Amino acid sequence: MRTPGGPIVTLTTDFGTRDPYVGSMKGVILSIHPAARVIDVTHELPPHQVLPAALLLREVCPRFPPGTIHVAVIDPGVGGRRRPVLLEIDGRFYVGPDNGIFGLLLRDFPLRSARRLENPEFFLSTISRTFHGRDIFAPVAAHLARGTPPERMGPLIDDPTGIALPEPRVDGEGMEGEIVWIDRFGNCVTNLAERAVLAWARGNPVVVRASGRRIGPPRSSYEEVPAGEPLALFNSLGFLEIACNRDRADRLLGLGAGEAVYLEKGRGNGSGPAGREEG
Amino acid sequence: MRTPGGPIVTLTTDFGTRDPYVGSMKGVILSIHPAARVIDVTHELPPHQVLPAALLLREVCPRFPPGTIHVAVIDPGVGGRRRPVLLEIDGRFYVGPDNGIFGLLLRDFPLRSARRLENPEFFLSTISRTFHGRDIFAPVAAHLARGTPPERMGPLIDDPTGIALPEPRVDGEGMEGEIVWIDRFGNCVTNLAERAVLAWARGNPVVVRASGRRIGPPRSSYEEVPAGEPLALFNSLGFLEIACNRDRADRLLGLGAGEAVYLEKGRGNGSGPAGREEG
Amino acid sequence: MRTPGGPIVTLTTDFGTRDPYVGSMKGVILSIHPAARVIDVTHELPPHQVLPAALLLREVCPRFPPGTIHVAVIDPGVGGRRRPVLLEIDGRFYVGPDNGIFGLLLRDFPLRSARRLENPEFFLSTISRTFHGRDIFAPVAAHLARGTPPERMGPLIDDPTGIALPEPRVDGEGMEGEIVWIDRFGNCVTNLAERAVLAWARGNPVVVRASGRRIGPPRSSYEEVPAGEPLALFNSLGFLEIACNRDRADRLLGLGAGEAVYLEKGRGNGSGPAGREEG
Repeated sequence: MRTPGGPIVTLTTDFGTRDPYVGSMKGVILSIHPAARVIDVTHELPPHQVLPAALLLREVCPRFPPGTIHVAVIDPGVGGRRRPVLLEIDGRFYVGPDNGIFGLLLRDFPLRSARRLENPEFFLSTISRTFHGRDIFAPVAAHLARGTPPERMGPLIDDPTGIALPEPRVDGEGMEGEIVWIDRFGNCVTNLAERAVLAWARGNPVVVRASGRRIGPPRSSYEEVPAGEPLALFNSLGFLEIACNRDRADRLLGLGAGEAVYLEKGRGNGSGPAGREEG
Repeated sequence: MRTPGGPIVTLTTDFGTRDPYVGSMKGVILSIHPAARVIDVTHELPPHQVLPAALLLREVCPRFPPGTIHVAVIDPGVGGRRRPVLLEIDGRFYVGPDNGIFGLLLRDFPLRSARRLENPEFFLSTISRTFHGRDIFAPVAAHLARGTPPERMGPLIDDPTGIALPEPRVDGEGMEGEIVWIDRFGNCVTNLAERAVLAWARGNPVVVRASGRRIGPPRSSYEEVPAGEPLALFNSLGFLEIACNRDRADRLLGLGAGEAVYLEKGRGNGSGPAGREEG
Repeated sequence: MRTPGGPIVTLTTDFGTRDPYVGSMKGVILSIHPAARVIDVTHELPPHQVLPAALLLREVCPRFPPGTIHVAVIDPGVGGRRRPVLLEIDGRFYVGPDNGIFGLLLRDFPLRSARRLENPEFFLSTISRTFHGRDIFAPVAAHLARGTPPERMGPLIDDPTGIALPEPRVDGEGMEGEIVWIDRFGNCVTNLAERAVLAWARGNPVVVRASGRRIGPPRSSYEEVPAGEPLALFNSLGFLEIACNRDRADRLLGLGAGEAVYLEKGRGNGSGPAGREEG
């Protein structure tokens, strides 16, 4: 499982990049194992929120090669009772707080082992109360990169923390989901997975409604509607997304995280234009 | 053309860094060729705008060593009719949508070949409708980094898309340009190239006007005027820039992209202080 | 002092990431020494401010392995009289403007040599007036990474520029510091070092006041107070910080950089809850 070019350590945090935190973690990793390659995934996750972190880690981390060491620090409970953990999931390593951020990875991929980080031999010599990213997670990742076996990091645990995603609700002719992520472009990503929607629709046309408007059937690309018009499509993450061709759907439709999105089985007029709700 | 240390793949996007998009591209590249070195150029280009992307790519990419693979994804037309392309320009590779973002590189450097990306062997196995950065451009770049020859990626095309920069206008004693970029510091970069201005001025002193104010002659450094005062200079990109010593020229002068900047051939009083327009 | 995996060059700037500046520096470094590994520390330092840069560099750079080449460009005086320098401090190299940004490193670590960058052989062939990061500092760092000895870069100087941190004031039963940094989470970091406070307190309990409120004694972690409550603690940088469990202390308490924070020797009731000032 040696990675050509050197072991890869990725960083995913809510630290932003204007403070010393990210740079300090990089310095710690490289001072312990100078040949490691540190890759930024993101440092701009919403501060202290577990769900967006879980969604992003689920989407991004499995795309890296086996053997990659993923460090994730969204850690509102730092210094409290939450456990620092090392998980081995589907050939990749995950290092961070056990607060649910790895919960969707645990749901979707085989867990090989979960350990509580306990061996101070692999921590910095002084542990601060507020920055385990630097003092525990970065050095553990660097020691893993160096070849230290996971067994030495701490004892097995059997209950790594999961996370509950809001589940879509189905009743008769309707399916209701909600917006769980708004991306940089104002695209509103829902919890309605393509697979689940197709299974529910059973070949019937589907019409999407959101914010009191008929958005129309899922499209194949943004360009299928005129510029400035809203649309729905199954996006690159595999979820229904409310978007707007060359504009921001969140502003255009006044949508925010947590707001409902409705699907109805249509009556064959599904490919008409999007429009305001009639009377 | 092997790069010591491993092949370099750069990323330039308008994705921001708070969504999964950039991390996913990095994962895809490294899973296909783990020895690649992925370098962030920027992910903060203005969303969906071709001109700023073209200006930045023109300035940055040729500075990398020959053999570098530059991936650029500013792609408002994703999923529509624009072509995915691979260009070989002056010894570097450019992978992205054929929408003009490479137009200034095409204008200024020799094109060796342009290809339409067509061979699905080098794409991800499933192509989403909205994220060709991850599904087409990143894997093609990784396969190039791995040594796959460009010929295998798709057929030659002879009409890669260019871009029209707004051209300065010259009449008699005046030259008129416009602001095409405002940088992080509030410096207002124009389309007035130093070379063109010097050719036009023919050794005469030049006075700059903008926002109804006399800014004065081009200076040699920000520090040549008192703190808080506006000035003009030819900047590090080789263009006339309206700046302000230790302050933001955009706010101080109320300037925005697209606004006019005037040059006049002076009468020898060119080195006087900047000042408001008289009556 | 060869670094396994290739020489490390870090970048710390106030350039942001939406302009061509950072990408240009990376291109210049890699074109001179393609095997260099370029690491982003931050590009989001407050523009033109020396003190935050000095604090961050002091915290981050010594954590990197010996031999690391740190490039720092916070350079309001670019093109003016400030000197470009190369410092060798405690086994790491520092390249940037001599304006005080390296002042806290100079205060706390042994200086081996300081040189004025003068040898144009190691600069880009044309030096712009406004971007020495690209034209001087990046190429000098790349040549160092390549193995060029510091002696060739320029002559020794004996007066690299320091910086004065605001010092805490002590009188009798009180100690007064000020906020010098507000981080992404709204935590307000002061200039009150743990070591200095403990020496002053001599084992007595300490009570913190800020913004007209009693914040209480220094805590061990954010979680020691209820969510939404303010607290004080010695943070991961070793300084007293005013924070708020799962919220922003800067907004909650109306605190900004430069504002005073008071310590009082308490009377044994130090572990009571935080509260508004009485009467």
